[in-house]
Amino acid sequence: MALVVQKYGGSSVGSPDRLMAVARRLIAAKERGDRVVAVVSAMGDVTDELLAKARAISADPPEREMDMLLATGEQVTIALLAMAIDTLGYQAISLTGAQAGIVSDAVHTKARIQEIRASRMMEALDSGRIVIVAGFQGLTSDGEITTLGRGGSDTTAVAVAAGLGADVCEIYTDVDGVFTADPRVESSARKIDAISYEEMLEMAATGARVLQLRSVEFARNHGVVIHVRSSFNDREGTIVKEADETMEQAIISGVTHDTSEAKVTVRDVPDRPGVAAEVFGRLADANVNVDMIIQNVSEAGTTDISFTTPKDDLVRATKAVREVVEDLGAREWSVDESIAKVSLVGAGMKTHPGVAALMFRSLADAGVNLDMISTSAIRISCVIAADQVDIAVRTLHKAFGLEERSVVAETSPAAPGR
Amino acid sequence: MALVVQKYGGSSVGSPDRLMAVARRLIAAKERGDRVVAVVSAMGDVTDELLAKARAISADPPEREMDMLLATGEQVTIALLAMAIDTLGYQAISLTGAQAGIVSDAVHTKARIQEIRASRMMEALDSGRIVIVAGFQGLTSDGEITTLGRGGSDTTAVAVAAGLGADVCEIYTDVDGVFTADPRVESSARKIDAISYEEMLEMAATGARVLQLRSVEFARNHGVVIHVRSSFNDREGTIVKEADETMEQAIISGVTHDTSEAKVTVRDVPDRPGVAAEVFGRLADANVNVDMIIQNVSEAGTTDISFTTPKDDLVRATKAVREVVEDLGAREWSVDESIAKVSLVGAGMKTHPGVAALMFRSLADAGVNLDMISTSAIRISCVIAADQVDIAVRTLHKAFGLEERSVVAETSPAAPGR
Repeated sequence: MALVVQKYGGSSVGSPDRLMAVARRLIAAKERGDRVVAVVSAMGDVTDELLAKARAISADPPEREMDMLLATGEQVTIALLAMAIDTLGYQAISLTGAQAGIVSDAVHTKARIQEIRASRMMEALDSGRIVIVAGFQGLTSDGEITTLGRGGSDTTAVAVAAGLGADVCEIYTDVDGVFTADPRVESSARKIDAISYEEMLEMAATGARVLQLRSVEFARNHGVVIHVRSSFNDREGTIVKEADETMEQAIISGVTHDTSEAKVTVRDVPDRPGVAAEVFGRLADANVNVDMIIQNVSEAGTTDISFTTPKDDLVRATKAVREVVEDLGAREWSVDESIAKVSLVGAGMKTHPGVAALMFRSLADAGVNLDMISTSAIRISCVIAADQVDIAVRTLHKAFGLEERSVVAETSPAAPGR
Repeated sequence: MALVVQKYGGSSVGSPDRLMAVARRLIAAKERGDRVVAVVSAMGDVTDELLAKARAISADPPEREMDMLLATGEQVTIALLAMAIDTLGYQAISLTGAQAGIVSDAVHTKARIQEIRASRMMEALDSGRIVIVAGFQGLTSDGEITTLGRGGSDTTAVAVAAGLGADVCEIYTDVDGVFTADPRVESSARKIDAISYEEMLEMAATGARVLQLRSVEFARNHGVVIHVRSSFNDREGTIVKEADETMEQAIISGVTHDTSEAKVTVRDVPDRPGVAAEVFGRLADANVNVDMIIQNVSEAGTTDISFTTPKDDLVRATKAVREVVEDLGAREWSVDESIAKVSLVGAGMKTHPGVAALMFRSLADAGVNLDMISTSAIRISCVIAADQVDIAVRTLHKAFGLEERSVVAETSPAAPGR
């Protein structure tokens, strides 16, 4: 008898019919003999509707009250899903984040889970019920309602799985799993059967949207096995877990891309110690997330500094840059919003030195110019022109043989490093 | 510095504009130097929309889950009202029933408040905030969310006022106060400035819809002064409190009417001891509320029993009656849904014996036939034909001089008992 946590997002519970379908899936797991916990999001557009109500009242509502408002979205879903299970003749109980023992810090609208007090969930499971938990929300130790921010329901599901010692945390979504590339860009992209936390973290951080980064970090830190799968069929999806010998030993697991960032360049900054610290200190003070950084030292004793940042942070970033350019006596600065980042992710990279060379050569042959490059032990990312992102993804997917199911380290005809 | 609880119903908070108007009214009270607590209902049709969502899933949803669902309605209102106050530059804090310390029993969908743990509300008031409490909901000692049933927000407001030792509990509504008759029926009906708990209880029980019976009972039991007033103007409304010498000494305070009941008659029941106990025991077992009862003993050793019951209970009532008729060997039974009840309420009745005589004479002169009569120390109710209810109300309002402001005991030209 396994203990299974199943997480369903807003589109999976967006109508009475879909709620009934989710109820049937939970019951099927129960009928297989499992102990079953569901973690659910607000239905469909409910969160957007609540945000619109808040905006009709206030341009800048207090974050505590936003949490009070938004937490109702998931509470509606859990009640209706419990009713759906009841009409099908099974016993369920809905629990708010507070009731489920999801203890968070007090950072409203982006709280972090601190602890799961699982006793009430455990009691309900022991009494044979299917337990329905509201995702995305928690309660502080002072009794304040919080929300967890973007991707919060995934994180709730993983945290609940960790708190209950669940065998698996199934994340139901509208795709069949994690793919070697975005199937909308590369039609021959194939589903990955199993992937390590490290690789999944890199893929989530560089554009794979199927799992939120925070939930993967949480899963890695607590050893929770994630199963990403479709809510529309019964096929096996992608298992995310600690790397082991059962995993396919691909050098490259996937190609990701991201068009949500912009590039900012500051030119002719005096090249003296502490200049970079000054620039990025100001950006940090302005709460700007910085991704890639490049500094080119010129001959004339000045330097150019470029960095990428989410477009969402661009207003704050340009304000900070304008100030620092003036203070430093730099010549000028510019913003390029027409960039994309394409990344190769694969644990095999560590032991196969030719990956970068093949990546750069393939992109060059396809006429794709590289603007910036950054690497980690298991990832290489290149900034390119936004209008070349599709050709870059397809080129790399082909160059590394990702469309073939038999791409295995050392034996692949397309394996790099030779 | 007074402590004031203000309660606003669904129509008063039904749109962003109305929420802002409520916020301004709360701020005005705060600016006058008062400590201010608001108790609010779900906005406009929100509760009906939630009920529709539940019905789309289940014909008979578990009551615990209904409470989980419905409690979100008020939670949305409190968050938005706190945002509205914030945008106007004042400090507010919203509290769910659980956070406000509204402890109830565990009878889902019609829970009763057991205790108010007021410390968190007090702390928020002490810090200078306007406190916004979700009406209609509570938390059991086991941490289960409950709702209080019909009129629950009025009861929450009175209970919060009692728990905080508030100086007054203001119930804001869409009329100017409690009237001597329903102004839609009798245009000369006048607002009552002050009325005793006992009279208000009788009026609420016999058709005055402005205050829910339970909230008046709670107010009487805890000595909470209620001020019923309009949310659309600043006029003084009706004060409900313990009878005292400052109150207008009217013999009759008002005429009420009620068309929500039906009459059930069982004919030719064997007239032996215990028959009435058998009939009404069955009805009680079937959870049927019985209002008025009349038993006519016939000459032939049989008896007719008639009673009135809310039309909402009629399906259960007829089922119980059908069974008991068979068991007792009664001849037949019938249901009349075309009845109305018209009542006179007044504390002065106790000391003025002519009230009943004038009531019956006035109705007879107006051609209104009386079907059933019941009385309490301060009320006389008559069942009449439904299509005569308007003429009956107008006749009694005029006969007891209620349209005149100067109707005072002993001196009124229309006073009965002479």
